[in-house]
Amino acid sequence: MPPDPRVLVLNGPNLNLLGRREPAVYGTTTLADIEALSLAAAREHGLALDFRQSNHEGVLIDAVQEAGREMDAIVINAGGYTHTSVALRDALAAVGLPVVEVHLTNIHRREPYRRHSYVSEVADALICGAGPHGYALALAHAAMLLKKEGR
Amino acid sequence: MPPDPRVLVLNGPNLNLLGRREPAVYGTTTLADIEALSLAAAREHGLALDFRQSNHEGVLIDAVQEAGREMDAIVINAGGYTHTSVALRDALAAVGLPVVEVHLTNIHRREPYRRHSYVSEVADALICGAGPHGYALALAHAAMLLKKEGR
Amino acid sequence: MPPDPRVLVLNGPNLNLLGRREPAVYGTTTLADIEALSLAAAREHGLALDFRQSNHEGVLIDAVQEAGREMDAIVINAGGYTHTSVALRDALAAVGLPVVEVHLTNIHRREPYRRHSYVSEVADALICGAGPHGYALALAHAAMLLKKEGR
Amino acid sequence: MPPDPRVLVLNGPNLNLLGRREPAVYGTTTLADIEALSLAAAREHGLALDFRQSNHEGVLIDAVQEAGREMDAIVINAGGYTHTSVALRDALAAVGLPVVEVHLTNIHRREPYRRHSYVSEVADALICGAGPHGYALALAHAAMLLKKEGR
Amino acid sequence: MPPDPRVLVLNGPNLNLLGRREPAVYGTTTLADIEALSLAAAREHGLALDFRQSNHEGVLIDAVQEAGREMDAIVINAGGYTHTSVALRDALAAVGLPVVEVHLTNIHRREPYRRHSYVSEVADALICGAGPHGYALALAHAAMLLKKEGR
Amino acid sequence: MPPDPRVLVLNGPNLNLLGRREPAVYGTTTLADIEALSLAAAREHGLALDFRQSNHEGVLIDAVQEAGREMDAIVINAGGYTHTSVALRDALAAVGLPVVEVHLTNIHRREPYRRHSYVSEVADALICGAGPHGYALALAHAAMLLKKEGR
Amino acid sequence: MPPDPRVLVLNGPNLNLLGRREPAVYGTTTLADIEALSLAAAREHGLALDFRQSNHEGVLIDAVQEAGREMDAIVINAGGYTHTSVALRDALAAVGLPVVEVHLTNIHRREPYRRHSYVSEVADALICGAGPHGYALALAHAAMLLKKEGR
Amino acid sequence: MPPDPRVLVLNGPNLNLLGRREPAVYGTTTLADIEALSLAAAREHGLALDFRQSNHEGVLIDAVQEAGREMDAIVINAGGYTHTSVALRDALAAVGLPVVEVHLTNIHRREPYRRHSYVSEVADALICGAGPHGYALALAHAAMLLKKEGR
Amino acid sequence: MPPDPRVLVLNGPNLNLLGRREPAVYGTTTLADIEALSLAAAREHGLALDFRQSNHEGVLIDAVQEAGREMDAIVINAGGYTHTSVALRDALAAVGLPVVEVHLTNIHRREPYRRHSYVSEVADALICGAGPHGYALALAHAAMLLKKEGR
Amino acid sequence: MPPDPRVLVLNGPNLNLLGRREPAVYGTTTLADIEALSLAAAREHGLALDFRQSNHEGVLIDAVQEAGREMDAIVINAGGYTHTSVALRDALAAVGLPVVEVHLTNIHRREPYRRHSYVSEVADALICGAGPHGYALALAHAAMLLKKEGR
Amino acid sequence: MPPDPRVLVLNGPNLNLLGRREPAVYGTTTLADIEALSLAAAREHGLALDFRQSNHEGVLIDAVQEAGREMDAIVINAGGYTHTSVALRDALAAVGLPVVEVHLTNIHRREPYRRHSYVSEVADALICGAGPHGYALALAHAAMLLKKEGR
Amino acid sequence: MPPDPRVLVLNGPNLNLLGRREPAVYGTTTLADIEALSLAAAREHGLALDFRQSNHEGVLIDAVQEAGREMDAIVINAGGYTHTSVALRDALAAVGLPVVEVHLTNIHRREPYRRHSYVSEVADALICGAGPHGYALALAHAAMLLKKEGR
Repeated sequence: MPPDPRVLVLNGPNLNLLGRREPAVYGTTTLADIEALSLAAAREHGLALDFRQSNHEGVLIDAVQEAGREMDAIVINAGGYTHTSVALRDALAAVGLPVVEVHLTNIHRREPYRRHSYVSEVADALICGAGPHGYALALAHAAMLLKKEGR
Repeated sequence: MPPDPRVLVLNGPNLNLLGRREPAVYGTTTLADIEALSLAAAREHGLALDFRQSNHEGVLIDAVQEAGREMDAIVINAGGYTHTSVALRDALAAVGLPVVEVHLTNIHRREPYRRHSYVSEVADALICGAGPHGYALALAHAAMLLKKEGR
Repeated sequence: MPPDPRVLVLNGPNLNLLGRREPAVYGTTTLADIEALSLAAAREHGLALDFRQSNHEGVLIDAVQEAGREMDAIVINAGGYTHTSVALRDALAAVGLPVVEVHLTNIHRREPYRRHSYVSEVADALICGAGPHGYALALAHAAMLLKKEGR
Repeated sequence: MPPDPRVLVLNGPNLNLLGRREPAVYGTTTLADIEALSLAAAREHGLALDFRQSNHEGVLIDAVQEAGREMDAIVINAGGYTHTSVALRDALAAVGLPVVEVHLTNIHRREPYRRHSYVSEVADALICGAGPHGYALALAHAAMLLKKEGR
Repeated sequence: MPPDPRVLVLNGPNLNLLGRREPAVYGTTTLADIEALSLAAAREHGLALDFRQSNHEGVLIDAVQEAGREMDAIVINAGGYTHTSVALRDALAAVGLPVVEVHLTNIHRREPYRRHSYVSEVADALICGAGPHGYALALAHAAMLLKKEGR
Repeated sequence: MPPDPRVLVLNGPNLNLLGRREPAVYGTTTLADIEALSLAAAREHGLALDFRQSNHEGVLIDAVQEAGREMDAIVINAGGYTHTSVALRDALAAVGLPVVEVHLTNIHRREPYRRHSYVSEVADALICGAGPHGYALALAHAAMLLKKEGR
Repeated sequence: MPPDPRVLVLNGPNLNLLGRREPAVYGTTTLADIEALSLAAAREHGLALDFRQSNHEGVLIDAVQEAGREMDAIVINAGGYTHTSVALRDALAAVGLPVVEVHLTNIHRREPYRRHSYVSEVADALICGAGPHGYALALAHAAMLLKKEGR
Repeated sequence: MPPDPRVLVLNGPNLNLLGRREPAVYGTTTLADIEALSLAAAREHGLALDFRQSNHEGVLIDAVQEAGREMDAIVINAGGYTHTSVALRDALAAVGLPVVEVHLTNIHRREPYRRHSYVSEVADALICGAGPHGYALALAHAAMLLKKEGR
Repeated sequence: MPPDPRVLVLNGPNLNLLGRREPAVYGTTTLADIEALSLAAAREHGLALDFRQSNHEGVLIDAVQEAGREMDAIVINAGGYTHTSVALRDALAAVGLPVVEVHLTNIHRREPYRRHSYVSEVADALICGAGPHGYALALAHAAMLLKKEGR
Repeated sequence: MPPDPRVLVLNGPNLNLLGRREPAVYGTTTLADIEALSLAAAREHGLALDFRQSNHEGVLIDAVQEAGREMDAIVINAGGYTHTSVALRDALAAVGLPVVEVHLTNIHRREPYRRHSYVSEVADALICGAGPHGYALALAHAAMLLKKEGR
Repeated sequence: MPPDPRVLVLNGPNLNLLGRREPAVYGTTTLADIEALSLAAAREHGLALDFRQSNHEGVLIDAVQEAGREMDAIVINAGGYTHTSVALRDALAAVGLPVVEVHLTNIHRREPYRRHSYVSEVADALICGAGPHGYALALAHAAMLLKKEGR
Repeated sequence: MPPDPRVLVLNGPNLNLLGRREPAVYGTTTLADIEALSLAAAREHGLALDFRQSNHEGVLIDAVQEAGREMDAIVINAGGYTHTSVALRDALAAVGLPVVEVHLTNIHRREPYRRHSYVSEVADALICGAGPHGYALALAHAAMLLKKEGR
């Protein structure tokens, strides 16, 4: 039996603060809750998960490159780097894995500079505004993409 | 036992041509296939489905208004009207139902005029680039939103 | 005695929802109330009224063209089509009747895309932000314009 | 019996030239005619009127501030300052009275720089393109606003 | 002998008013005259003609889709929808027939918003400013395109 | 019998390379072929032809000025100068002859800087995307324009 | 003998500081020197001169309006109001006198916001970059314009 | 002992309304309070103060010019003229004194047209968003600048 | 006696080079000098100081997040990240502390891309152009903000 | 006695058509008339004149370079190249002579693309809208500039 | 032994002035020096050289077309035409030779309109800011490209 | 004998992936190959080399600052940070060494956001589109710059 496909779930800057600050705005779900929720979804879809967060653009790029060697797909919520990082976009393009982009909020309803995503340019699919549930949807879609490719 | 929540899946112009033309580009999935796939997803999530398509902006607006009286949520792929219809956006805003926006392709990787969506301004969540599977994800999210609201 | 001049009051998409939804925002005045208010104003100014609404751009254009043959002036609140319809603007220009544009809200205080009106390009006068009362003002002005022309 | 509500009708630069120059373009109505017409309208609606004109931005701001202390509403045709004066806009915002903006011509059919009005950002209603009659409409609307507020 | 290739000549909003209004501006040629002129040109080039007009965007899209099943080429003057309809553009792209775009006036000499044509993006050829004669030129070109393809 | 009206067909930079280079892209039609094709069309429509090409903006302007003294109409494909030459545009405006603009490709489907044509501002008609056949259409239209003027 | 034509030379904000401050930049010519120079030029061309300066936009507008009643032409250096005053532009347009615009420096070589002049829109001629000598040139041109009109 | 350096604190339009209107928004601090606070700060830093306010652009320019002759530094809150007055900016540049710009609110968090300041182009330092306390900071900085220059 | 409020003074990229390079441009003040100056100001205002610098965006974000847990206010000079880092802006917004933004130079007088600050969007106050002294002013203001909050 | 300073008067494309075409628009003054008028002005100011015209950008550049070796100043009306020729601008900058730019019409009142002049960037003075008389003014100014330089 | 590959080094407007004017700015290197330097580099890399300069856009286009028939690569410094000539760009694209673009200065550090190069769109490589040495680098690269292609 | 001048060759994000991924697109040259090629070029030109790569913006800035203390010139390919990093640009400006910018591809032929380089603003020379060979050219130029400076 082949091993489960591996998916990197990569979280960008400030997502580590989730749930602990401004709960009235962002709810009380923490990044740990999202990790748990993601693990459950991964199990349901037969995926092995690597769940990470960093505030450092370079660390995120390193992680994407490493995933290019060791993982089968990437689910990414790049936080503030979504809108400014050509380098992260290039890393995703270079590794050539299936990419599903997630955002907790609907970025199209926020400030103008949040409406453009460099990640979207290289993502297969984009899921935004679905809150923590968006991670489960993204993993469901990653599973489907990997099934299609026969991995 | 309360009746299943009802969801309108509304499809805009030219989606009726899906699968019959340019199969090399758009695949061989037809809108009927997507309807079948959506019915299966709806059944899985305990939703009653109304699946429609029209090439007429006015018919789509009428359908949204009618849904405001008779449905609990809307999943919408507004096709070309996504980018041009303030009137459709206003209808969605007026009826005040949960809205999940779907696009088969990732609109952020296409022509500049496809990168702005009037629908996104009033949609709770946006799922694009996930192909026909996006409808299933959208219904999964609509179900979750309705569960939260206790409908 | 010559017959009363005839004025078409034409309402665009979603105005039929007025008063029934989001009363906290839009008040409880319905389109039927505005029709009554307009009839009263018409009577006061000696005008015969045709009061219509449609969500369909094509139906609105047909109505403008028909008015070109049968009416003496047009009062129009084109709703969302105000900002997107070159075709409606062209119809108004083609029929050559006096046109008074009305909007319930002050469109200059809303989203940027609501600040441009194709209708304004061909309207004699514009009244916006005066709420339902704006229809009465618009009819008062239409009456004055028709009096000047000796109709 | 309470005294009549007081309305300031404020006219900006060059409106004092009305009717005396280029009568082929602007007609032969003078600002004095508009004052007479406004007084008649005020009487009809039970309003006390203060009718002023100045070419000085600072004098107009002073007048708005003074109205904030002594009047109940403002009808304003700010002429060329409409498009350039943040300071006049701030004065109107600061005094917090009902404001009805008037323009003799339809500013949306003129040069691009006349299509933006700082006054519109803080005006309740806008009436343009109705010629001198627009002052009467503006006073009718001011009266209605003041009646609502019970003044 | 194979049947004549069939060409749809599709006319958008307000073209039905041609010749009856503002003859000083648009001349006295009516749409019926253009139909007659087009029939003569079609006969000359061995084409079967279907000549239609509608003010409804949806009706035009339906007609394009129907032409995709039953016609060999499309000559289109989309009127005001030329500049605003992504949906009509998508329909033309989807049916994949040869498309010749016609405009009576030279749209490059008019208002800025008339200088961009969504139809042009998917049209093989564009003929504008040639008045009613442009329809004859368009049919001549459609005939040549169909001859090349051996239809 | 009056002499045939004379038409200058003026070709701008790089059109002399046609057919000899990149035949996979531009086909094997040469400028000599287009000249032959144009002569045939001219004969059919009773026109005398002067067919020229230059890579020099100044030579093209000189030719336009000379045509102003000796010809009755101009058919022009200004190549790359289409998008950059105010001086050529001014020459065409100054001589006041009927002008038909031709482009082999549909310039609206190419790079953004090719979508604006200074020539279009002063051309009666524009025909683009019709390949070499566009010259024949342009001459047909020039003939019609000259017939109207009774030349 | 008819009296000399009268010309208002109107100077805007900060021109009163000329020559006294930053002589390294602006030279040592004062506004009084320019007045003397202008008087000499006026005498040479048979003009009566009224030379004024104000830092107040309203005072400048009043002066323009007064000139409309008492003078035959206006030479204006509107200083900083050149780039911001629609009201001053409207005053110049309203009085309908010949207007010659002067600037000491070449405004096209300075900050972008100095490259647009509202005054230029209504000025017959513009002379800039010629330093104090520009006033003499402007008066020479005003004299020529007045001679043409026979004043 | 040399006299204290003199600083002009100049306040633009509507600042005279401070504290009396909309206290919920702007607090209850009046301009008189700010004057008192500024006098205290001036005393602490050994500065002589001239504190003024005007709604008239021209009066503000006159004051700046006068300060150029009689004061050693300028602290300025130009209110609405901040964003529109090239003339005021030129006055500040011309007098060549040290300039510290103050705004009560952080202008970068407000409407887009408030984000550009003509005053900033010629100010040594900018302090905004610090409320009335910003005046004290500005005077502290002016004192330091004057100490450096040895005045 | 409560402990002194703690303020993080955070310095971005290249500020560590201050004073050692290009002394003709930036002066000879080093970052160590600014630290000393800041400590003096902190002592004067009863603040405990943490003074840091990093060239790494991620390290700065980590520092802001840590400050959210351990400090009472932030004074930040984000250097080049001021203009490009949405992530840093989001961190500042998330921790919700009082923020005072400092820049040594007046960023409004430099290249256009330095005129926009993401930090300003979330900063309470901005002080720029005051050189090293700006840090003292910023700390004075931070102290005042903390006093108001009763910390 | 030193020889008269030499001035090149250089005229760009289409100026050779002056007076012969569209006399209703451009008047009946020909370029030969302007040459005569310029010679008279030159004589009055003690200048030797070289008066040229070409439709070729390269010829104009050659003439400017030659003037750099043989003339003392340049008066230039670059016609359509004014708005498009960086190369002509660079030639004028390279030769380093005094340059006076002339335009017959006020280019600020025409199409937007005529409002920018590459020549203005390197011209000492600009005179536009003064018709043929502008050449005389330009030569008067060139004479003054040369006198200052002691040539 | 095959003949040396031939390279055209083409220089645009005003490069013939190099070294003779403004030596303080551009140094004392003349175009003849650059030709000598280029010949040395060509010899070193085994290339035959054709070194030309013209101020005429048309002559440059002719030279590029001729090179298409007789040369193996092009090194081009198009001077001012770099930024304005679509026609030159089209010529380079049409001939299909390897193209290396050179500029003496770093065009990205100059005026905004010098930052866009039409030549760059069709050049294989771009070398700018390296002064005369850039020609040697360009020839070194041309040699390498030709070696790769086996010419 | 003085030691060889030292040059830092600094490579930005994702350049470490070169040659291992998408060889069809980027070729099979690895960064190690480029390092070897650069060492050979350095040896030829008598330079000592430090060749580095990092995905971290902060690490690159640190390296530039360190080079400011220990190296004589910098050759930099900043990858994706080229287009987004003001901080890296500031570091290069601060250290004041000669800078040669390299890009493997011609960035002017790619996406619009790759056409602007912050590095170019502070680089002496730019070489792009020359592939790995560009590093050799850059080192050749760095050697020449250092020779000039006599290092």
